Parts: sequence; structure tokens; C-alpha cells
Amino acid sequence: MIDTDIHFYEPAKGHGLPHDPFNAMVGPRPIGWISSHDAAGRLNLAPYSFFNAFNYVPPIVGFASIGAKDTLRNIEATGEFGWNLATRALAEPMNASCAAVPPEVDEFALAGLTPVPSRRIAVPRVAESPVSFECRLTQVLRLQGADGTPVDTWLVLGEVVGVHIARRLLKDGIYDTAAAEPILRAGGPADYFTITPEARFRMYRPR
Amino acid sequence: MIDTDIHFYEPAKGHGLPHDPFNAMVGPRPIGWISSHDAAGRLNLAPYSFFNAFNYVPPIVGFASIGAKDTLRNIEATGEFGWNLATRALAEPMNASCAAVPPEVDEFALAGLTPVPSRRIAVPRVAESPVSFECRLTQVLRLQGADGTPVDTWLVLGEVVGVHIARRLLKDGIYDTAAAEPILRAGGPADYFTITPEARFRMYRPR
Repeated sequence: MIDTDIHFYEPAKGHGLPHDPFNAMVGPRPIGWISSHDAAGRLNLAPYSFFNAFNYVPPIVGFASIGAKDTLRNIEATGEFGWNLATRALAEPMNASCAAVPPEVDEFALAGLTPVPSRRIAVPRVAESPVSFECRLTQVLRLQGADGTPVDTWLVLGEVVGVHIARRLLKDGIYDTAAAEPILRAGGPADYFTITPEARFRMYRPR
Repeated sequence: MIDTDIHFYEPAKGHGLPHDPFNAMVGPRPIGWISSHDAAGRLNLAPYSFFNAFNYVPPIVGFASIGAKDTLRNIEATGEFGWNLATRALAEPMNASCAAVPPEVDEFALAGLTPVPSRRIAVPRVAESPVSFECRLTQVLRLQGADGTPVDTWLVLGEVVGVHIARRLLKDGIYDTAAAEPILRAGGPADYFTITPEARFRMYRPR
């Protein structure tokens, strides 16, 4: 089917809709639930909406910090960060960790989560999360628009140097994405999606 | 619940599992279905597994090209690319477009898809896709590991300068993510997930 009734807009001139649809169209998205600490060891935990993996060998993940937030400052100070999988069971604590609070507030405590030591980095992981990555900062890129104007957004990239997986998610050694019940961020102020086993299908790449 | 039975590994030393679980844990992920053409106008269309949005104003999207593929070369030559939403109805054509074929093969034709002219860029969009973005290249970043070694992966970023949305996906002007039935990429050689309205839940950010 080819749609012929199309709404077209140029973002620079406005979307012409009641709400900006941008983050509802690119999605739903995996969540960058990032742990960090400052030079004095004060913990920080925050979810980032624009996050993904970018390379397999070595494994590299990254997220966009819109504004120079505490997490960005911490990672630039220490060169390390953690990523923690946000699951359905952790939705409320994950959401609690995105409250706008001063840098000295520890979102682990705020959200009732348990920091446990990592093995390759000094930043703790979220004990309640069934998957965590320990990451070393590799690159920070300040974004810019098509006209070259810098934007107040920084892409933070790190190599994954340690991986923790709850063994219950390994079925015959294969990680079961749906069993972890990851949550994904979609559009608007409040939309999330869960992932269930029924939603899975398979397609092999053509040869 | 806190899992205590944990599989820990350092990627540089191997994962110790039958398959690398990395892209099954970061996911499922929105798909970067990217249209481009070379300097001579030869079309290319390919899905990228590592794709996301990174900024709202201006809207910026990006994807990782693992290896210097045709798409990367085209975008560097023309400064433009298109993004097209991969939906459940388009799963098979999307998959057909990732066949490993020579640069002169037009994946639109290969997959039975219709290129239609864009409005702000020269690269056509996929007529069958209900959402397309017209993008101008902003930055290309070659990734590197934590030890500073360059990796053969390039992050390609672009500003969205034009947006096409099938009006049937706008409910009272609000874009309905689930109605588009986007497909998401997960792990292994073949895992995808669909998104259904039943999988949605809402959480408002705490104040």
C-alpha cells in the first residue's frame, strides 16, 4: 500500500501539529540508564532517551546528553560509566531516577536502588538490573546542525569492558531478549512499550 | 529482586557463551532504513541495525556504518540521505534490501519498492513507507576503542530537514507509534520484534 494522504513539514518551520511527533516516529527506543559518579565519588543515575549500540568489536555504546548534564560532567571527569538494562519491573525506579534534582542527590537512594561494585570500573552498577555494562569513555562529540552551528548536545561513546548478565536470561547459553522484559521509550511525555515473547518474529538475511 | 547468579565477562577476552549476546541485550532497536545515491544518481537502500535519534531541535538522527559501505560513500559524496520507517508490512522488502550486492544494484528495484522524489533533498524516499525523513549530513565520526585505536566503523549524523507522515497515523494530530506497526531489530541472525498497542504503558516524569 502506498499512502497518498501525507503530512509534510520542514522542522525548521514548525511541524504544524499539536505535539512534535519526532520522538514518537523514531522508536520505541532502548533506554540508556546510565550510572556515573563525580571526582568525589558522588553517585548519579539517569535514563537517557537517545541511546544505542554502535559497534560489535569492540562493543561500543553511546547516548546523547541534551544539555551538559551531571552525567556528562561525571563521565568527562572519571572516564567511566555504567549502563543498566531498564526492565518492566524496574520501570518505576527508572522513572524516579529522572527527577530533576541537584548534582549532590544520589538517584540510587532516591529510587530505592542498590549500588554494587563493578569489576573493571569504579562506577557501581544497579544490583536490581539483570544486565549491566561497564564502559570506558572513548569519545565525546558535540553535535551540530546542517549549517555547522553547534548544538548544546553531546554524544557520549564508550567501550564496553565488562558485562554482567543474570544467568536466568541465558537459555542454553543464548540471551533471551524478551525474557528480560526490557522497556522502550516512545513519544510524548509518557509513552513506553514493553517487549513480550509473542511480539518476536524471525527473518534471515538473504544470501 | 536482585539476581545473584551472574555471568560476567570481559568482551576483550571473549563472552564464554555459544553466541555473542551483545546486540540482543541492547534492544530491540529502531531500524535505520537509509536511502542514498551516489554522485551519478545510482540509488541505494539498506537497513542499519545501530540507529537512533540524538537531538530534538534541530532534529538529528544517526546510524553506524560498520565498514565503509556504499551508503557511507554515497552520503559523503552528496551530503544527503533519507530515513524510512520499517513496518511489519515492509519487513520482507526491508530484509531484501540488505542483500550483499554490488554498488550498482538498486535495492529499491531488488526489493520491489517505489522511489518517489523528496522535497528538500535529491535522494528519493520509499513510497511504501508511512514515515520518511529527508536528512542533510552534519557529521561523520570514525569510532575508536578505549585505547584510542580507530575502528572501521563510522557514525553518520544528519539533520532532518523534511518529514513525511501518512495522515492515517495522526490521531487528532498526535502520531500513533503503535498504529504504524514499526519493527525493531534484536539479537542473533534473525530476531525482530513488532510493536502492538497492547504493549504500551505510560509513566510521567516525576516533578
